Amino acid sequence: MEPTTPEKACFEAGIKFGSLYHQFAGTPVSPKSSDSLAKAMEDAIENQPFCASVTVEILDDALRAELADQSADYTELTGRFMDVEIRIEYEDHTAVASMAMDGDYPLMKLDRVEP
Amino acid sequence: MEPTTPEKACFEAGIKFGSLYHQFAGTPVSPKSSDSLAKAMEDAIENQPFCASVTVEILDDALRAELADQSADYTELTGRFMDVEIRIEYEDHTAVASMAMDGDYPLMKLDRVEP
Amino acid sequence: MEPTTPEKACFEAGIKFGSLYHQFAGTPVSPKSSDSLAKAMEDAIENQPFCASVTVEILDDALRAELADQSADYTELTGRFMDVEIRIEYEDHTAVASMAMDGDYPLMKLDRVEP
Amino acid sequence: MEPTTPEKACFEAGIKFGSLYHQFAGTPVSPKSSDSLAKAMEDAIENQPFCASVTVEILDDALRAELADQSADYTELTGRFMDVEIRIEYEDHTAVASMAMDGDYPLMKLDRVEP
Repeated sequence: MEPTTPEKACFEAGIKFGSLYHQFAGTPVSPKSSDSLAKAMEDAIENQPFCASVTVEILDDALRAELADQSADYTELTGRFMDVEIRIEYEDHTAVASMAMDGDYPLMKLDRVEP
Repeated sequence: MEPTTPEKACFEAGIKFGSLYHQFAGTPVSPKSSDSLAKAMEDAIENQPFCASVTVEILDDALRAELADQSADYTELTGRFMDVEIRIEYEDHTAVASMAMDGDYPLMKLDRVEP
Repeated sequence: MEPTTPEKACFEAGIKFGSLYHQFAGTPVSPKSSDSLAKAMEDAIENQPFCASVTVEILDDALRAELADQSADYTELTGRFMDVEIRIEYEDHTAVASMAMDGDYPLMKLDRVEP
Repeated sequence: MEPTTPEKACFEAGIKFGSLYHQFAGTPVSPKSSDSLAKAMEDAIENQPFCASVTVEILDDALRAELADQSADYTELTGRFMDVEIRIEYEDHTAVASMAMDGDYPLMKLDRVEP
């Protein structure tokens, strides 16, 4: 069947999440570079179509805990170091999705779809 | 409103597309390396949850046309050098999405959602 | 033969260039997001060992020229939209390298190695 | 001072290592997709100038150990899951570099430079 408008909004939300994650995963990050990275991630993904807003919080406490256990003073960005929320506006529908840890897995979750 | 099952299937399809594109865009590619890259892209993304199949075709003719116009004998992978189809099976729904050029833009498109 | 200190400095300079380019190539970019992206690239790579400074300039004029020729209002970051200089301090040696267009190719060039 | 030929060979070796790592880090990987990913990494980076050979071994035993400790049946490629060797031929010099774990850090190391 032909996709509906809310289904297309959800597809767009997924694209933005996959883009954000796989563009920036692996970036060298530390508490002193986390703010500029979070801002760049938001601004970069907001360029994409239908992307009304992106909020990225890099979790400095989680970074510090990681760094305390290792020899280098930076690590690679991965899901357990960030919370993300993305809001898509597609025609007359809004889709909101977020990423946060679900146990040991960085789960991307579709939160709500609204007309 | 709480997302429906087909909406969640569409969100998953979007995640896989964004992941595939932004993980592999920028990879050095030429007609002699395109087959192994396409295979790796398929196998990598098929690891992700709910991803029933991924088909990547790297367009050697488009690569050759690009290389004929430039000094180096390889280029960076980008949307105009590939066709992709992804099939998601999420609970009792299937979502199929594809990427191909729409004029000058590599459009990721939700093709159909089926119970 | 065992590498010398200046050779190791040059190897480190190359690592930083390859990292910067392939981490960030493909990022959605426009003149309105170029400043935050350039800052994040500098801060991220400066986390890496022996990296004394990174300077990234994203070329808004080149971006605007690209956007004038296409349908979307953003594009993907690639070599022709940035100038980069990286300074490595490795033991008692400094290596400076830069990237700029050489005809149609984004050439990473080792500029000088100094005790 | 103007870089020497062996210094330029070492710079090229570094570029290839940084490129390989940051292009492919974050790729979804499991023992069943590791062979195609390793092959694609080798072929992709061998496209780059002066790159005589790239050998990537993805460490299935390390992957299996990681997967045994987590809920998902794939993980993201990172340094502790691969051994890499890259051989550069630049004019009349050869540089060989490799990556392997040094304690908890994936160390990229310049092994030798030869006329």
